[in-house]
Amino acid sequence: MKNITIPKNKIKKIIKEHGTPFHIYDERIIIERLNNLIDSFNWTDFKEYFAIKANPNPHILKIMKEMNCGVDAATVSEIKLAEKVGFSGTDIMFTSNLTTLDAYQYAVDRGAIINIDWAADIYELFENDIIPENISFRLNPGSIENEIMGDSKDSKFGSTAEQIKEAVSFLSKNGIKKLGLHTMVVSNENDPAIFKDYTEMIFDFALELINEFGVEIEFINIGGGIGIPYLPEQNVDLKAIADSVYQSYKNIILAEDLKPKIFLESGRYVTGESGYLVTKIIKEKETFKKYLGLDASMSDLMRPGMYGSYHHITNIDAEERGEKETEIYDVVGSLCENNDKFAVNRKLPLSKKNDIIVIHDTGAHGHAMGFNYNGMLKNSEFLYTRDGKVRQIRRNETFEDYTNTIIGGY
Amino acid sequence: MKNITIPKNKIKKIIKEHGTPFHIYDERIIIERLNNLIDSFNWTDFKEYFAIKANPNPHILKIMKEMNCGVDAATVSEIKLAEKVGFSGTDIMFTSNLTTLDAYQYAVDRGAIINIDWAADIYELFENDIIPENISFRLNPGSIENEIMGDSKDSKFGSTAEQIKEAVSFLSKNGIKKLGLHTMVVSNENDPAIFKDYTEMIFDFALELINEFGVEIEFINIGGGIGIPYLPEQNVDLKAIADSVYQSYKNIILAEDLKPKIFLESGRYVTGESGYLVTKIIKEKETFKKYLGLDASMSDLMRPGMYGSYHHITNIDAEERGEKETEIYDVVGSLCENNDKFAVNRKLPLSKKNDIIVIHDTGAHGHAMGFNYNGMLKNSEFLYTRDGKVRQIRRNETFEDYTNTIIGGY
Repeated sequence: MKNITIPKNKIKKIIKEHGTPFHIYDERIIIERLNNLIDSFNWTDFKEYFAIKANPNPHILKIMKEMNCGVDAATVSEIKLAEKVGFSGTDIMFTSNLTTLDAYQYAVDRGAIINIDWAADIYELFENDIIPENISFRLNPGSIENEIMGDSKDSKFGSTAEQIKEAVSFLSKNGIKKLGLHTMVVSNENDPAIFKDYTEMIFDFALELINEFGVEIEFINIGGGIGIPYLPEQNVDLKAIADSVYQSYKNIILAEDLKPKIFLESGRYVTGESGYLVTKIIKEKETFKKYLGLDASMSDLMRPGMYGSYHHITNIDAEERGEKETEIYDVVGSLCENNDKFAVNRKLPLSKKNDIIVIHDTGAHGHAMGFNYNGMLKNSEFLYTRDGKVRQIRRNETFEDYTNTIIGGY
Repeated sequence: MKNITIPKNKIKKIIKEHGTPFHIYDERIIIERLNNLIDSFNWTDFKEYFAIKANPNPHILKIMKEMNCGVDAATVSEIKLAEKVGFSGTDIMFTSNLTTLDAYQYAVDRGAIINIDWAADIYELFENDIIPENISFRLNPGSIENEIMGDSKDSKFGSTAEQIKEAVSFLSKNGIKKLGLHTMVVSNENDPAIFKDYTEMIFDFALELINEFGVEIEFINIGGGIGIPYLPEQNVDLKAIADSVYQSYKNIILAEDLKPKIFLESGRYVTGESGYLVTKIIKEKETFKKYLGLDASMSDLMRPGMYGSYHHITNIDAEERGEKETEIYDVVGSLCENNDKFAVNRKLPLSKKNDIIVIHDTGAHGHAMGFNYNGMLKNSEFLYTRDGKVRQIRRNETFEDYTNTIIGGY
């Protein structure tokens, strides 16, 4: 059982006025999660850089701005979204990969923190006189000792410790003495011990750079990767995670009388639980299994289809009916692709055509991953504001939007 | 080794004028494949209904129109695309699933063939006085005897034989005596024996309906699913596949002195091999593996990332250099997602920054599956016409396109 934090009468009012499906985000949850982060890391000079890719709606980014967070942009488009709500300078971290000089130039011109994935890029930047004021390097640790994150060796992201050392040596010779460090080796992770292990690794590496090159490490971005309880029985203990990081920080960093800032680039943790995909059962079907067909599809939420991810499902009408019987269903969308399934073999209360279905935890990597396959049009987004109002923050895509780039009068 | 059918100077000219990346489709290949289909099935009254989802550009659909094919639409958007190039009536097959009455109404109003996924829909249609002139039912055979297609029991598509029989009995009582049948239980399949098995199944079922209800089966749509040689060593023998279908048809259908039309709804087979994603190496990188970073990403081609699919890769500049050395690379895009890889451990000639890379067989389910995750903007499409001209058929998406649906002045 998972709670729906937005009053059902508000949801039903939107359905009445706009129909289904749509995403709605609860602003109070976003603020609560941001406050959790800020509180849990209050033992240091901390800043959250919200990962725009999780939920790139400017109305959502505005909340981060009001909460004095920064944003993490992966592309020039994402920097532009950040600019639209007033982010600039070091409130933007540019964590791209395979970055072109043009993209670097765009970010450098805005004074963003340039988080360099491929350390050797720094030589090219200097050759082309694109000198970032704020430089950070992304470490790919490979397999570290306990091998928990062994497969980061197969990750395309970041540079090796040796490569970063060469680049830092080069920067140091060129008079740049201040920099940041970044690593991100987990995703949707809840085990505090894992956060301890990998922050030990990045803190140790920071010390190495300081000792070897006499540079100052201004901040360490320990990435995102904090999970959310997609499953009802899951629990994410942020305080325990933060405490694990604190233990590493204390043992390695404070012990040396250093005090780099700590940054996080959480996306999922901040907005994931705030979001709900509200959709309707448009068809009951039974062939070799029982199916509930929704008016939403994987174009609204790709995670179950692409990654087999669990998203909790509540049938709010069956709840209101006090439905006691349950049934095992595949909950599917109408895309002509067999992986367009929100849930396989899911136990739900006995459900009927026209029942409203709420899919939980769609506030991160939900609408953001939508596509137009099969001519599917992406749906609206709403914000349930902290003062209890409902505001539409994105309209439905139209057929005209969909055909906009076709050349020649179609 | 796979051939690039479009002259390299034409490709280089586009690069010079428009940059990379882009998709380009070779019209001659599309026409050749369509002719192959028409020739191979010339033992009966045959029609190809091109599956729009494979390549929904109207300029491409126009080729199908000129070749007197029909189109298969999965959604109302796809019907609208078809209408834009002049398709109407029974040249449109509407193979949707979880279909709303509104969608049915739209298709019925256009006289399309209504290919009913969920047989029980027919009762609702009659209740609402939406009576299609051209009705077809989609069979989900479950596991058939040889169990080759055993997992169609896990497919959300189609209805069981029993359910279709009930619906046909209902139609028959309501005076409707002519209908079509459809099944599609394979995808990207090359083995003629498999086509024989499942067409035997659908032909047997057609006979059952004829004998039991005295209906006329006007056509049997044996689906798409014909594979293409993604791997250089693969070979697709369309004649052998068609001959397998002919054997079933002869033994079961002609033996009874019947002659329903045979329809195919090929997508991949028609346009897949015509398409090339032309992209550039923007970064060489070596951490724990060697990487070639492209200016294209999974927003241009999702199949390798989503399904682990093989797409052949040619480095046309390395070819021109006569490069003898090879290397094992991961060929990756710049999306902030570790599955954004076009190839893992791919042996390629020694490759350098700025080399032009051609990714083969992107004419089906390529651009069509693009998304805007990470703020990625979808790229242009070009057509290399049968008279050797290059025509741009889609422009690049802009940041303004991307933000178009956001409400409130962003």
